[in-house]
Amino acid sequence: MIPKDHPRYKSLIIRERLSKCAMSGIVSLEGLTAHGRGEAFDYLIGEKTTESALIAEKIAANLLILANKPVISVNGNTCALAAEAIAELQKITGAYVEVNLFHRTEERVLKISNFLEGKGVSVLKGNVVKYLPLSHDRALCFTEGIPKADVVLVPLEDGDRCQALVEMGKTVITIDLNPLSRTARCARLTIVDELTRALPNIIRYAKEIKERNNTTEIEEFDNFYFLQNAIDNMITRLNCALD
Amino acid sequence: MIPKDHPRYKSLIIRERLSKCAMSGIVSLEGLTAHGRGEAFDYLIGEKTTESALIAEKIAANLLILANKPVISVNGNTCALAAEAIAELQKITGAYVEVNLFHRTEERVLKISNFLEGKGVSVLKGNVVKYLPLSHDRALCFTEGIPKADVVLVPLEDGDRCQALVEMGKTVITIDLNPLSRTARCARLTIVDELTRALPNIIRYAKEIKERNNTTEIEEFDNFYFLQNAIDNMITRLNCALD
Repeated sequence: MIPKDHPRYKSLIIRERLSKCAMSGIVSLEGLTAHGRGEAFDYLIGEKTTESALIAEKIAANLLILANKPVISVNGNTCALAAEAIAELQKITGAYVEVNLFHRTEERVLKISNFLEGKGVSVLKGNVVKYLPLSHDRALCFTEGIPKADVVLVPLEDGDRCQALVEMGKTVITIDLNPLSRTARCARLTIVDELTRALPNIIRYAKEIKERNNTTEIEEFDNFYFLQNAIDNMITRLNCALD
Repeated sequence: MIPKDHPRYKSLIIRERLSKCAMSGIVSLEGLTAHGRGEAFDYLIGEKTTESALIAEKIAANLLILANKPVISVNGNTCALAAEAIAELQKITGAYVEVNLFHRTEERVLKISNFLEGKGVSVLKGNVVKYLPLSHDRALCFTEGIPKADVVLVPLEDGDRCQALVEMGKTVITIDLNPLSRTARCARLTIVDELTRALPNIIRYAKEIKERNNTTEIEEFDNFYFLQNAIDNMITRLNCALD
């Protein structure tokens, strides 16, 4: 039991939730370590949504709403942290949700699908196809999902898969707290923000766009700006860290 | 199996070892997340011992050798990562080793103690006493350990315990990759380095001091210097991250 007076209570509660999901097999042990890496970068951007991340979140909402076939790719950590938000985002954008795992077993895919469905997500099922040029089961995608998608939201993605998707011509949006990661660098749009802060913002923007009858146009944007801005934020915070 | 020529071989081997120790109950699931956090900061300092960290390691050796009653506080991650090094450091410094866990159960204390003993560590046993002003079992210390210590080495410590120890007048040395953490800021001496790089350096310096018959004096030092230097290293690396 985490004492409520602990100064990092919220972060520890999220960590505890991931641990529980690791025990039930939804989150992999490697997923826990990956989460910790994200925590460190979040700490450096101040554990809040930066102005530039908010702009990226607005663009992400635009891209998803205006897509012909948006797909949200969900892994164990995303499921554990944000199943409810994924359900809401799906409702507004009409996106397909498919489960893609780095450490893939049929059992884990089923477990995560069931968990998501319990939170109101409609999860792609049916046939999988060796679609991505990656080794082993990481090549697999659901036939009706990523192969037919134009825009793919892949939060907390691994670099290999992100790069493969980009090279196949998909418009890849990622949510990644590490602006230096391969994922962050190769995505079309990188939201450098914590997942459970980013998704509600994207949802809010998507609702606004829907209320304006999807008339928004996609602005020109350069992903480098978002990465550099996140790095600048970290430097600024580090510069006065001990003041 | 991780290929030996992988550029991040050591880091991946360490991660694998921690996962194994999580499965056997030595490392807590939260410990895996904490490790990931450290990985991110290590990445930012360049995954090597900085010049200033090396100075801190030398001072740490001095403090441990010249202490009246040095104690090394070991948690699950430290046990998994560095049991052999702890054994060696104990041999040279004569330090007591006690097991202190954030997620404490008697079963885990026993498991970790057994693991350490298997690697040649002599582990404190016997009575525990509610010594620290912390909630629940985190207050517990072994009667013959921390309560009687003047110098305490607490690698990978949580901020609460570090602060409590400092406030009780202990000379606290910590090894923490995050120079902004509460632990790093409140310790008397913070080594901003990765545990398995830091301990062999401390051991080497301790041996040198012993060979000079413990005649070393403790130099004046300001912990702020070590923290600021680590931060400066991170800023330098971030400044050219996207070049």
